[in-house]
Amino acid sequence: MAMLRAAAKKAMAVVGTGAPQAASAFSRTLHASPDSKKIVGVFYKANEYASLNPKFVGCVEGSLGIRDWLESKGHQYIVTDDKEGPNCELEKHIHDMHVLITTPFHPAYVTAERIKKAKNLQLLLTAGIGSDHIDLKAAADAGLTVAEITGSNVVSVAEDELMRILILVRNFLPGYHQVIKGDWNVAGIAYRAYDLEGKTIGTVGAGRIGKLLLQRLKPFNCNLLYHDRLKISPELEKETGAKFEEDLDAMLPKCDVVVINMPLTEKTRGLFDKERIGKLKKGVLIVNNARAAIMDTQAVADACSSGHIAGYSGDVWNPQPAPRDHPWRYMPNHAMTPHISGTTIDGQLRYAAGVKDMLDKYFKGEEFPAQNYIVKEGKLASQYQ
Amino acid sequence: MAMLRAAAKKAMAVVGTGAPQAASAFSRTLHASPDSKKIVGVFYKANEYASLNPKFVGCVEGSLGIRDWLESKGHQYIVTDDKEGPNCELEKHIHDMHVLITTPFHPAYVTAERIKKAKNLQLLLTAGIGSDHIDLKAAADAGLTVAEITGSNVVSVAEDELMRILILVRNFLPGYHQVIKGDWNVAGIAYRAYDLEGKTIGTVGAGRIGKLLLQRLKPFNCNLLYHDRLKISPELEKETGAKFEEDLDAMLPKCDVVVINMPLTEKTRGLFDKERIGKLKKGVLIVNNARAAIMDTQAVADACSSGHIAGYSGDVWNPQPAPRDHPWRYMPNHAMTPHISGTTIDGQLRYAAGVKDMLDKYFKGEEFPAQNYIVKEGKLASQYQ
Repeated sequence: MAMLRAAAKKAMAVVGTGAPQAASAFSRTLHASPDSKKIVGVFYKANEYASLNPKFVGCVEGSLGIRDWLESKGHQYIVTDDKEGPNCELEKHIHDMHVLITTPFHPAYVTAERIKKAKNLQLLLTAGIGSDHIDLKAAADAGLTVAEITGSNVVSVAEDELMRILILVRNFLPGYHQVIKGDWNVAGIAYRAYDLEGKTIGTVGAGRIGKLLLQRLKPFNCNLLYHDRLKISPELEKETGAKFEEDLDAMLPKCDVVVINMPLTEKTRGLFDKERIGKLKKGVLIVNNARAAIMDTQAVADACSSGHIAGYSGDVWNPQPAPRDHPWRYMPNHAMTPHISGTTIDGQLRYAAGVKDMLDKYFKGEEFPAQNYIVKEGKLASQYQ
Repeated sequence: MAMLRAAAKKAMAVVGTGAPQAASAFSRTLHASPDSKKIVGVFYKANEYASLNPKFVGCVEGSLGIRDWLESKGHQYIVTDDKEGPNCELEKHIHDMHVLITTPFHPAYVTAERIKKAKNLQLLLTAGIGSDHIDLKAAADAGLTVAEITGSNVVSVAEDELMRILILVRNFLPGYHQVIKGDWNVAGIAYRAYDLEGKTIGTVGAGRIGKLLLQRLKPFNCNLLYHDRLKISPELEKETGAKFEEDLDAMLPKCDVVVINMPLTEKTRGLFDKERIGKLKKGVLIVNNARAAIMDTQAVADACSSGHIAGYSGDVWNPQPAPRDHPWRYMPNHAMTPHISGTTIDGQLRYAAGVKDMLDKYFKGEEFPAQNYIVKEGKLASQYQ
């Protein structure tokens, strides 16, 4: 595994030209074994929920279940949820941490400025999928390695997308609201409740998650479409019956439901702006568990208010945590949650195991699985280019 | 099609022994063609929702879209939602109606007393599935025909069940509540959110709806079990991977999720009482879109409160509409709605077409499709025996 920053650091140490900052880092290593690393984890805090499930490893208190293992190897492991502003806990450790582990659910935003300060930093690990909280270009320029636990929660997210499709198509929430309000009005739900069967579902992106979604949609007898840079395998096309749409703007007006399954990159940021949303079928339903910044926030809220979008469900927001006045909290016909789909207990256990495995490889100087790299040797993975 | 009551009526007319009630009915037929029938439909009222969707035929205002057709054939068609108490609209027509069409979503309860009053009644049609709102024994004894639009909304209900399984397993609602309350606490959702993959799902009943559910669950890679009087076909067992469990009480403790897919009969009424619920796995999730009276209402509420049942979702209540103080409105971790799953717009269009087809056969004296009969020639269909 190539770690350009690490190599540069070693060279500095050898020639003795460390800046004060580097010297300070050096002095700290006197108190630890020569290979001791400082690892910082930024996770969401569980508070009263931490003790309710022994498998709940994805929170600050659970710390991915790797504290004993890391400390037994002589490494330092700092875990916090305090990630914003100049006086946050994360900022205290930026200058001398070697590894930062964070998640898309409570992302530590790794800006170019933070990367500049992080003189010892070698590895940025995303416990989950989606590393857009990192300035990937700055990370590449600084010689950092960025890697995800690819595949750790793809099933979790695909299941969640199918749930959201059904919640919107079948108009679940108005019925639930009636129940808790003491009402009973079947007509008020039924006039806009549909079966999924026979509808046209288009996924924008058919990577690992999109493919799993298509497989799960297959028995519902829908008309399945997908748009991506590449076609899925002929076997999977045959298995799912999904049809390739090379031109996104030709696919979108056909869809009763649009599902977003692409990473956030400079090309996809704001892809669904007012103009493109205007070209969607009137009454379209949108599911987005990918990244919120692929949508124009206000354009989505406006189209929900006008009824052009008949329902919007997702668990991704810009920024996260979503502020109390975020318009998506208030728009009609939404079925939003905080960022949760990839952090089920099952997902947590998989990405915790993946983080441990990759740290082990990092300590041993071994390569990661190829598909896990987002930035390697100064280059971005293809989906982020 | 045998209509014992009709035959008896004709015999009475021939011999001129009509009671005052029958004579009154006879006088009315003077104003209509000899084959004119009085048909009463009891549906839910849509009010302001009626005009919002031209396909919304399942409500009083939509009247299944068969008014013009019926009236052009000289029949009388009364439609109402007013079905309870001695002075309701339905009561005014009981003595001389020939056909009553009703739905499980807003059921007209056809008691032995009402059947006794309904001297002209020949046919009870359920627009949907589930005729337990009718006293079937009394209907059989009176020589009535009871028929459903079997198959009209099985897809609708199966899809809805899968939605509810996902909503419970993935702990959707606490996240949604956070959003609308202005909160953000991923841990408060994640500590009890799971993937469906790998879990054990048992369906109690594998008739038309249960089979469709098993097919839709297949790609989720669960452990699928089913209990029924009969095994499903070897082909469907192979396709779905579902395993037959002859002994219900042997299956139930294995299940992470239990789905109820059986009709309400005297054998299934109260099947899930306090004792049987106590034998379920602690933390079990239950989905019931079949009939509420299969469960002991208070036992379900108590087990939700204690946490023994970790989530309960369904759209069936006892009685319907559910009163404001129904305990299922207030129990923790529920995901209840009014009775809606079978009355999507797609379902409505199918059962409206089915009702029209069966009325046409009734007018012509033709047989219904065999699977649609619930009571025929004094005998109950096998699932109700």
